[in-house]
Amino acid sequence: MTRSHLSTRYQQTAELNMDQIFAQAADPENISFGMGLPDEAVFPSEALAQAFNEAIATAGASIFQYHDTQGPLSLREKIAALTATYFDYRPTADQIMMTQGGQQAIDIIGRAFLDKDDHIIVEAPTYMGALDAFDSYEPIYHEVSLEADGMDMAQLEATLQQYPETKFVYTIPDFQNPTGVTMSLAKRKQLLALAAQYDFYIIEDSPYRYLRYTGEAVPSLAALDTDGRVILISSFSKILSPALRTGWLVANPALMALFLKIKSGLDIQPSYISLMAIDHYLAKHDIQAHIATINAKYRDKCALMLACLAADMPDTVTFTQPNGGFFIWVSLPEGVNATTLLAEQMLSQAKVVYVPSEMQYASRQVTHQFRLNFTGATPDDIRTGIARLGQALHQHLFVAQ
Amino acid sequence: MTRSHLSTRYQQTAELNMDQIFAQAADPENISFGMGLPDEAVFPSEALAQAFNEAIATAGASIFQYHDTQGPLSLREKIAALTATYFDYRPTADQIMMTQGGQQAIDIIGRAFLDKDDHIIVEAPTYMGALDAFDSYEPIYHEVSLEADGMDMAQLEATLQQYPETKFVYTIPDFQNPTGVTMSLAKRKQLLALAAQYDFYIIEDSPYRYLRYTGEAVPSLAALDTDGRVILISSFSKILSPALRTGWLVANPALMALFLKIKSGLDIQPSYISLMAIDHYLAKHDIQAHIATINAKYRDKCALMLACLAADMPDTVTFTQPNGGFFIWVSLPEGVNATTLLAEQMLSQAKVVYVPSEMQYASRQVTHQFRLNFTGATPDDIRTGIARLGQALHQHLFVAQ
Repeated sequence: MTRSHLSTRYQQTAELNMDQIFAQAADPENISFGMGLPDEAVFPSEALAQAFNEAIATAGASIFQYHDTQGPLSLREKIAALTATYFDYRPTADQIMMTQGGQQAIDIIGRAFLDKDDHIIVEAPTYMGALDAFDSYEPIYHEVSLEADGMDMAQLEATLQQYPETKFVYTIPDFQNPTGVTMSLAKRKQLLALAAQYDFYIIEDSPYRYLRYTGEAVPSLAALDTDGRVILISSFSKILSPALRTGWLVANPALMALFLKIKSGLDIQPSYISLMAIDHYLAKHDIQAHIATINAKYRDKCALMLACLAADMPDTVTFTQPNGGFFIWVSLPEGVNATTLLAEQMLSQAKVVYVPSEMQYASRQVTHQFRLNFTGATPDDIRTGIARLGQALHQHLFVAQ
Repeated sequence: MTRSHLSTRYQQTAELNMDQIFAQAADPENISFGMGLPDEAVFPSEALAQAFNEAIATAGASIFQYHDTQGPLSLREKIAALTATYFDYRPTADQIMMTQGGQQAIDIIGRAFLDKDDHIIVEAPTYMGALDAFDSYEPIYHEVSLEADGMDMAQLEATLQQYPETKFVYTIPDFQNPTGVTMSLAKRKQLLALAAQYDFYIIEDSPYRYLRYTGEAVPSLAALDTDGRVILISSFSKILSPALRTGWLVANPALMALFLKIKSGLDIQPSYISLMAIDHYLAKHDIQAHIATINAKYRDKCALMLACLAADMPDTVTFTQPNGGFFIWVSLPEGVNATTLLAEQMLSQAKVVYVPSEMQYASRQVTHQFRLNFTGATPDDIRTGIARLGQALHQHLFVAQ
């Protein structure tokens, strides 16, 4: 080829991406806190195996045929009930569309709303997969800093004053990825009031909400919304199994026809086999009880990692105190580059994997922080891994002084 | 909402889309030749049920975890062998990436290559799902007419002279969707020569190649390609089951890293459960023998529909004579609008569903043709449906004179 055929959006230099982290995490010598992995031990593997069996036996050959784009009604009805339980908000089954994990829901929203150079607001930091998806549509990002109780509302309002054409705010209000932070009720109300004032959508991405270990639930944005401004995304990845690749999107009926058209262009329809297996699982098992079991296990892992961090980190290192979810967010002294540190020291010497902050900010400018996952590792690996990380950081920060 | 938040690409009026056809096809009173449905009776349902069982039992809990974006090596190796058998071209497993049906491969290619107003060439008519996918990237389409042996090469060359910046030519060379036409060897060679001369990629979308009922196989474009210009797309949807949602993309190594990055942003990774079930199926069963069984059945259906069309259509109606695949393409006299006819007469009175040509041309300007699927209907439905169609057309064309 004598010219570049690539879209301009991909003509920049390649950067560290999620796929590379998957690869690094797979090196058996490394203890990985990188990927957001659930603990395999909590998968209801037997029950899911049986559910696949029953779904296929019940439907017969028809389960292997093309079906519809939105997903089976019986499953969407069960998701409506699950949403009522955990989000205090009951959508109709018609408002729910199945997606290929929550990730595809993010991409569909990007495609529906974004032209090149449109304005959107994201948390700083935010879910790197959302940035991957939105990047394809080449929006102009505005970042709003996260505080211990969610977005800095003064900064959000100032941003909206400057960019009133903002199309949506993308937020992960519950046990945020990557920080573990949960948005307070007061801030949720403020966000909704601003959405009405500046006429934008709120994308509430909430795959972790089911996983609360301490403290009281805060009402969901969808529950507080009175005029169809919230588009809710969730998924079975963190509460059943990520390999099911089953998420969903809840939106007002006016948007659903377009979302279905987009989904059809993306991959025609979801895998009916997996969806019917989930439907059978949910019909036969108490998913609330299953989630309670998961929470008991993850509560301990979260507490253990926080205790290890408190014991092993240098004094100049700080970290968040999540009440649920998958992640703890660690801040090194400013000026320390966590990406370089990962590449030059952690992977090769300390043999510990984390996700550096750089790729988790829309600006790609903040480099002294990183994300740790506490659900995927064993308690022993948490102890050993955080000890190794602490040792390496003590050494590095001492040398750096 | 007081303003439109939608991307400009979706601010036009809604048109008939694939999802609506699915819905119409579902009306039990209608005989549907609309969707490209395989015959459920040819699915290896027992074997697939067992394969899901075995895959889950063998892997245990780990099958339900996140895996990698490209898909399991053992399956990609089997696809490499399948490609060698049916395409006379043997890629390495590294050149293969699993996708959510062939549809997602098309979307990934659009995202990788296309900026707004980039030039691409498609067949006229072409696969409507490809138009759905490419539309998102807002390219400028140039259409090249299909003849009985593939694209009009003089028209293609003239188009390339006028638009030498063309990024790729998208073609379905085998039993094309929607016309059933197969590109001749001479034209394949000409296409590759033009690709070298004008420096563009060829997207060879070939899900139907396995399904030849009459005549001799023509070498694939991938087999004839000597400099990595062909990106091959195929799928298990037509030879195993569409509900597996499993397709793949074969590309030169230089492109693979970008395709993986894009796939990761779209939906992180494929469903490992379905992929491992297919891997188990292929390890245990002779897929060539299975394909031969399918072909015997579809050969009869194709011949039956062609015979019914010959008997029942008015003289002014013409249709293609496919050697394989899923579809026959019917042309009414110019001036007859097949979309209007479908909406006003076929669905309500004749109770027959086809896909009107309008949505199968990038220009959306050709309205007097339609696509018929012959694999999904029973022989009785083919007889009855084509008779009804013929009757309605006799009536309509007589009145129209």
